[in-house]
Amino acid sequence: MKKTNIFRPRSVAVIGASNKPKKLGFQVLKNIIDGGYSGKVYPINIDQKVKKILGLKSYTSISNIKGKVDMAVFLIPAKFVAAALEECGKKRIKLAVIITAGFKEVGSEGLAMENELLKIAKKYGVKILGPNCLGYIDTSINLNASFAPSYPKKGGVAVISQSGAICTAILDWASKSNIGFSKFFSLGNKPDITELDLISYLSKDNETKVIIAYLENIAGNSNGGDFRKIASNTTIKKPIIILKAGTSSKGASAISSHTGSLAGSDQSITALFKQSGVIRASSLEDMFDWAESFGAAKLPGGNRVAIITNAGGPGVMTTDAIEGTHLELATLSQETTEKLKKTLPSSANTHNPIDVIGDADAVRYKNALNIVEKDDGVDSILVLLTPQTSTQITDTAKLVIKKIKNSNKTIIPVFMGGRKINKGIDIFEKNSLAVFEYPERAVKALEKISYCQSCEMGIKKIYKPKKIYINKAKKQKIDNILVKSLHDFSGRQALIAGAEADIIIKNYGLNTVKSVFAATRAKAIAESNKIGYPVVMKIDSPDIVHKSDVGGVIVGIKNETEAGRAYSQIMKNVKKVNPKAVINGVVIYEMISGGMDFFIGAKRDPLYGPMIGFGLGGIYLEVLKDVTFRLAPLSTFDIEKMIEELKSVKIIEGARGKKALNKKWIIDAMIKVSNLMINHPQISEMDINPFKVYEDHTIALDNRFILNQ
Amino acid sequence: MKKTNIFRPRSVAVIGASNKPKKLGFQVLKNIIDGGYSGKVYPINIDQKVKKILGLKSYTSISNIKGKVDMAVFLIPAKFVAAALEECGKKRIKLAVIITAGFKEVGSEGLAMENELLKIAKKYGVKILGPNCLGYIDTSINLNASFAPSYPKKGGVAVISQSGAICTAILDWASKSNIGFSKFFSLGNKPDITELDLISYLSKDNETKVIIAYLENIAGNSNGGDFRKIASNTTIKKPIIILKAGTSSKGASAISSHTGSLAGSDQSITALFKQSGVIRASSLEDMFDWAESFGAAKLPGGNRVAIITNAGGPGVMTTDAIEGTHLELATLSQETTEKLKKTLPSSANTHNPIDVIGDADAVRYKNALNIVEKDDGVDSILVLLTPQTSTQITDTAKLVIKKIKNSNKTIIPVFMGGRKINKGIDIFEKNSLAVFEYPERAVKALEKISYCQSCEMGIKKIYKPKKIYINKAKKQKIDNILVKSLHDFSGRQALIAGAEADIIIKNYGLNTVKSVFAATRAKAIAESNKIGYPVVMKIDSPDIVHKSDVGGVIVGIKNETEAGRAYSQIMKNVKKVNPKAVINGVVIYEMISGGMDFFIGAKRDPLYGPMIGFGLGGIYLEVLKDVTFRLAPLSTFDIEKMIEELKSVKIIEGARGKKALNKKWIIDAMIKVSNLMINHPQISEMDINPFKVYEDHTIALDNRFILNQ
Repeated sequence: MKKTNIFRPRSVAVIGASNKPKKLGFQVLKNIIDGGYSGKVYPINIDQKVKKILGLKSYTSISNIKGKVDMAVFLIPAKFVAAALEECGKKRIKLAVIITAGFKEVGSEGLAMENELLKIAKKYGVKILGPNCLGYIDTSINLNASFAPSYPKKGGVAVISQSGAICTAILDWASKSNIGFSKFFSLGNKPDITELDLISYLSKDNETKVIIAYLENIAGNSNGGDFRKIASNTTIKKPIIILKAGTSSKGASAISSHTGSLAGSDQSITALFKQSGVIRASSLEDMFDWAESFGAAKLPGGNRVAIITNAGGPGVMTTDAIEGTHLELATLSQETTEKLKKTLPSSANTHNPIDVIGDADAVRYKNALNIVEKDDGVDSILVLLTPQTSTQITDTAKLVIKKIKNSNKTIIPVFMGGRKINKGIDIFEKNSLAVFEYPERAVKALEKISYCQSCEMGIKKIYKPKKIYINKAKKQKIDNILVKSLHDFSGRQALIAGAEADIIIKNYGLNTVKSVFAATRAKAIAESNKIGYPVVMKIDSPDIVHKSDVGGVIVGIKNETEAGRAYSQIMKNVKKVNPKAVINGVVIYEMISGGMDFFIGAKRDPLYGPMIGFGLGGIYLEVLKDVTFRLAPLSTFDIEKMIEELKSVKIIEGARGKKALNKKWIIDAMIKVSNLMINHPQISEMDINPFKVYEDHTIALDNRFILNQ
Repeated sequence: MKKTNIFRPRSVAVIGASNKPKKLGFQVLKNIIDGGYSGKVYPINIDQKVKKILGLKSYTSISNIKGKVDMAVFLIPAKFVAAALEECGKKRIKLAVIITAGFKEVGSEGLAMENELLKIAKKYGVKILGPNCLGYIDTSINLNASFAPSYPKKGGVAVISQSGAICTAILDWASKSNIGFSKFFSLGNKPDITELDLISYLSKDNETKVIIAYLENIAGNSNGGDFRKIASNTTIKKPIIILKAGTSSKGASAISSHTGSLAGSDQSITALFKQSGVIRASSLEDMFDWAESFGAAKLPGGNRVAIITNAGGPGVMTTDAIEGTHLELATLSQETTEKLKKTLPSSANTHNPIDVIGDADAVRYKNALNIVEKDDGVDSILVLLTPQTSTQITDTAKLVIKKIKNSNKTIIPVFMGGRKINKGIDIFEKNSLAVFEYPERAVKALEKISYCQSCEMGIKKIYKPKKIYINKAKKQKIDNILVKSLHDFSGRQALIAGAEADIIIKNYGLNTVKSVFAATRAKAIAESNKIGYPVVMKIDSPDIVHKSDVGGVIVGIKNETEAGRAYSQIMKNVKKVNPKAVINGVVIYEMISGGMDFFIGAKRDPLYGPMIGFGLGGIYLEVLKDVTFRLAPLSTFDIEKMIEELKSVKIIEGARGKKALNKKWIIDAMIKVSNLMINHPQISEMDINPFKVYEDHTIALDNRFILNQ
């Protein structure tokens, strides 16, 4: 993005402007004029007979314009865009908003045309928004360079949308809810300007308080910035709420490792958002609710919620909704309770939830609010109202609005009902304030705006990933193994397990189990003697991934006799199941017991790089899926959060009288795996399962790598 | 409930009727008159000067009325209700609707008055609705015997609410959404008529298509019927949706067993609902959405959903929402796809989700619907609409309504947006049809109405619990242990573990680990031989609690020699630590290995009886809480559903190449535990953890009972 703000042009050309009201070329020009844009506007229409459009002088080409043109909006058919863009380039415009469709989205021919546009744009230093988009809106300069059917009012919400239909739905919603927008971008095919550029831009935009985005895919990297960095730098200043569509995991490809089966592409998005402080919405409804709350309510100083209600039932429902969130029911101070007792009728409940009783008028609500807002143990107040006989709906709405504006506490109204209650709802909406009809939704929104105050990325701090130093010799050793395996497995998926996998792991400073390879029965016996009994024997074959399943593993071998017998048995078992398997021999391991079985894995996401997983291991891994992911490079903070997120955190912290495990060892191992994946891009997936954790050390017991061909 | 329908009175007295418009006695009478009730109405006011109220002759007492009176509504102060009820009893009314508040809800004095009412009611065979309620409405006889501020239109939804405020909110919502009600009951304190009586009544009510209820507590038993039985018998005919408030688990009491810590009171509600086919809503919003859908839409024949949309984004969001539900995206037949291709523009997507493209008018929607509804692979159709430039919002709404009414498929509209889209929403609401603004909510509602077709209780079948026969001798033996323990632990919580617990378990036909007591070295050797090696030997001494800590346990004893050595070693160890300990001898156990660790537990709920739990056992039990509960008596069907619900079901079904465990053994054990808990009410909690499951048998390894003092 250039230093000059390309989204605030001083002059705009509309290429394909038209006098025919049904044409987009008419609608867009009209939107620009009607919006009240104060810069110069140049309609362009190749028809020489057209002299004026909507009262403005029409040009046949941008090159005929004498003055400077900063931006052009394209509405001409796809096949004519390239030539027009070339002319625009020569005219030194900075931004091309290509509304025209018929590019990548229609197939290879369109894609070729789109690539052609990119080439031209690069040549002249022009940025492209679109093609195949709705255009954009900047309310601060009254520019509506779009064919959006309605123009939003000014406000603090910036919108980015990858779907034109969602754009129109959002605008329609906003006009009903009276929500104001700062900027509104329709991304289209986004071959040039992506969400990354826009987030980066909006991050510094003073009019924008909160960014909401509907995206179907998210660029990992684009134009010299990566999502994680840009989003992190933004969310420490203002919230980003993203609805990422396309989460369903239809047609996942063949599964080659534990991590492969556990880490779908949606996990990488989840990790990405967590690590950059992005709030994820799973529906438009949530996105709207939260955007409205962020835009309208004060951010609470903490998570303690007071409830004021005119009925018990809704109070109970709200308490239910709070349970299981990061919020908690505030404990009112004795002073507060006493003051409430003095003011409220004797049958009122002066503990949280505070019940001002069914016959409460607006004044009683006001009295209660006045008292509760002064309680230092309260961060936010939910004001619940049901339409009872003597309820003053509009008066109560008005006083709550006054309070929202003047109180230093976060106050969120919940007006429950339908027809009658609408009078109250309307008043809030006229004031562009968030109001809810159901307590559950209010609680969800309040959680989002409360949580951000203390959220993962802190809105305060960015945690630096940890890098470790691996000397060249070690790195080379590993690369040799990787190269050799890629060669051996040429054309197939390359798998490294057993002794070679242990070497890689060991070179990154992780403990592995003592093991020796033995190609023959005699060697197997000799090596078993050397390691010391009991030992474990496992088949060593590139063709066998799940060794136990084919009888390729025998544990608890206690002496020489058993060692020999085990070797023969394994060979027999394996040959029976897979007679054609290439068999190298067996690997003999020191037998490890005790400890807790965890799992460390990694998978390289094509867009976002290596994703590291940690969770409960052993046989419970794929059954219980108590696993969490983050993208490399990992920070210590990331790993601590991962551990906290697991259900099995209790095992680490010491469940049922057992001693706690030392998290330090887990963090250390995870940092090593994160570095390993970054340093060796040939590795596409890896599993350590089980990763044995003891009180004072860890062992990477069973290790496996899958390489990119 | 009597055979005559007490809720359809031919004459009504209003006790406390008034001429003052602000009084409830005026409002209720007015509601009855305005509602158009065709029976006789008698206002009653003790003031002799009052001759007429709202045009009707006023009486000073019900006894002054000459004709028969079926029902009386009470609006007089609490202290006068008893006397008036006595008079009503003498007049042989059948139903007393006591709107008056000031009873149990205000404390012990009120409770005493409430109990007095019950006594009088019983004496005369009068049923009481309330006290402290809003009254009730029956739209089929135009009776509005309530002070509800609005009167609903006729329809198929019956409402039961324990909160007056929720009543008013529901009525207000209904007037906005144009939903019609068959009956509307405000329960109040419900000392007499409860939700059970009403569900039982509504079950047979022809006007009621769906029952919705807001409840803060649920009666286990009342007036000769229990919830499970009544609800089951109802849900096989019509859906019941209940919002049970008060789920938060504040201040759970001290925890005495695994089951105690896992089974909160909300688990028993969950179990109760599952076993009776009740649909649980967790918010009013869900309850309204689902009630509307059940009331308006056809029930789909299956779970295969087609999506018709005028934009890609909403289609993707809907697909996302479907994932993780019981629904699935329908695969369109080739014929359907071909027909769609012929009708729709070339850029349309003719696979599910079907994209009719942004410029779709009403006719194009109609064409697509006509084709898709004929596909046998489609059970329901979601019609998505976003407000684009050429979208015909009202026309499309009208045609969808026609389709909803005439098609044999379930069609649910989702109109996304705000102001513009409202024109469409209004048309659906005028027709009392469900319409959604967000696809996620539509999918959630569609799942509910689809799922019921094949739901747990089947809407088709009630599964009989399984009873097993235990002979008197065995039962007596167990009772002896229980009585003895209660005596031993007098005043404290009685715990039974070890050998005595095993005896109880064994008497119900479950396998426990083999164990024998041996007082001498020779006996120890002989018994070890009998059990079969390997065995475990443990000290038996009343003075030694932590046996392992003093070297009082030796495991893995492999033969006679080792057995003798172990005995001597144990004696030596114990005497060294505690020379004065009384030593009975040792207990020898069969050594158990392998198998999967599960958990069976039970807890007696004070309202709903024994609740049986099953889940993953061992150390994972309390960490992962992969446990599910059902109320006893259990049916085989219940247990199959429990197993299916667990995440660890994959372990039972054979994870990663392991052999599947035989469910038969689990079912068998659960049935036995269910019977054990029913037969021995002294047992308040029990744990079997681990419950070892093998391919061909099970062992209840560690067993524990907690008794009621």
